[in-house]
Amino acid sequence: MNANLKLYQSNGSPNSRRVRIFLAEKGVTLTQVAIDLGAKEQFSDAYVAINPRRVVPTLVLEDGTVIGEVPAIMRYLDEAFPTKPLLGADAKEKAVIQMWERRMELEGFAAVMETVRNRAAGLKGRAIAGPHDYEQIPALVDRGMERVKDFYTDLEARLNEQPFVAGPALSAADITAFVTIGFATNALQLAIPEANAATSRWYNALAARESFSA
Amino acid sequence: MNANLKLYQSNGSPNSRRVRIFLAEKGVTLTQVAIDLGAKEQFSDAYVAINPRRVVPTLVLEDGTVIGEVPAIMRYLDEAFPTKPLLGADAKEKAVIQMWERRMELEGFAAVMETVRNRAAGLKGRAIAGPHDYEQIPALVDRGMERVKDFYTDLEARLNEQPFVAGPALSAADITAFVTIGFATNALQLAIPEANAATSRWYNALAARESFSA
Repeated sequence: MNANLKLYQSNGSPNSRRVRIFLAEKGVTLTQVAIDLGAKEQFSDAYVAINPRRVVPTLVLEDGTVIGEVPAIMRYLDEAFPTKPLLGADAKEKAVIQMWERRMELEGFAAVMETVRNRAAGLKGRAIAGPHDYEQIPALVDRGMERVKDFYTDLEARLNEQPFVAGPALSAADITAFVTIGFATNALQLAIPEANAATSRWYNALAARESFSA
Repeated sequence: MNANLKLYQSNGSPNSRRVRIFLAEKGVTLTQVAIDLGAKEQFSDAYVAINPRRVVPTLVLEDGTVIGEVPAIMRYLDEAFPTKPLLGADAKEKAVIQMWERRMELEGFAAVMETVRNRAAGLKGRAIAGPHDYEQIPALVDRGMERVKDFYTDLEARLNEQPFVAGPALSAADITAFVTIGFATNALQLAIPEANAATSRWYNALAARESFSA
């Protein structure tokens, strides 16, 4: 238990879930502090002082250094706890995994998030998370749904070539893709298309791991 | 000269520019292959076989491994050529720099790109780079201009606190912010606001380095 590392997170936040699964896969435990998004605690003075971007998760190191942004939090954890790397062990693996994790995020996760934020009545004027207010753009909802469908098509093609998203081994790229699918299923009712056998096989195998219910 | 590393890139591409400056700052040279975006060479069978995402830049390693996505290319170069790291030397630095580089990209660079791609007559039906076609959404142009202005405000606040984007030293985060400003100035006529003295000072100091004209 690394009691001097603090993770501010929320159980209902898909971005927090990416980090929780990452930690569970690595077997790293640390202090978790719950932020209540329902009560808008991410906008509280206390939390904004920690993360001015007003989003979860945030990792705070023993010396007070604040790490925001999920890929940066994963980077810290993989470098500080190198046993069982999920972002690669050498230059080539690190680059290949970062490329695939990023594609899963920008083509999948971010497309789901954009659709949700431009559609939800409760997010009017908050179409982009962060310190600035932006109005919703309804046309982004249809385009977002289309993008998520394209994400599923591309992921199926990839998993017909390789057992895991970044290649032969489980990595952070699988975690981001897995969380994206849960998010799309719950928030947009866009589950894995029935014909996508490779994706379903891969998804069910991950879902059976205890770490993936973190 | 690392003749066995090949960088496919384009002189007119802001994403390619991020990698060219990164290489020049590190003093790493490699084989550059020009891709002619004006002639739509990124859609050619030969290039799509290398990078199915149809974007530049792409780095190809000696063993044929393909690295796309600018932050992943930078990751490879910094890990393979660790002298003068631009993405940090230890776990904490790596995480802090990745966080700031990502913010510069998502809040700045991506906002400029989204505005350009949803506005340019020549990009109708191509609002997002990549293998899929998406229609332009005109409302994204106004929102994008607003986002770029907010990026300038936040960057000024940051550079009033620290000499460089990620803290005390020059890093990849400065490169991405610098290229974003050139891109916003040229493509959107959104230059650094006159009142933003810290940003102007930082920008002019970087522009005076030979590497930043790469």
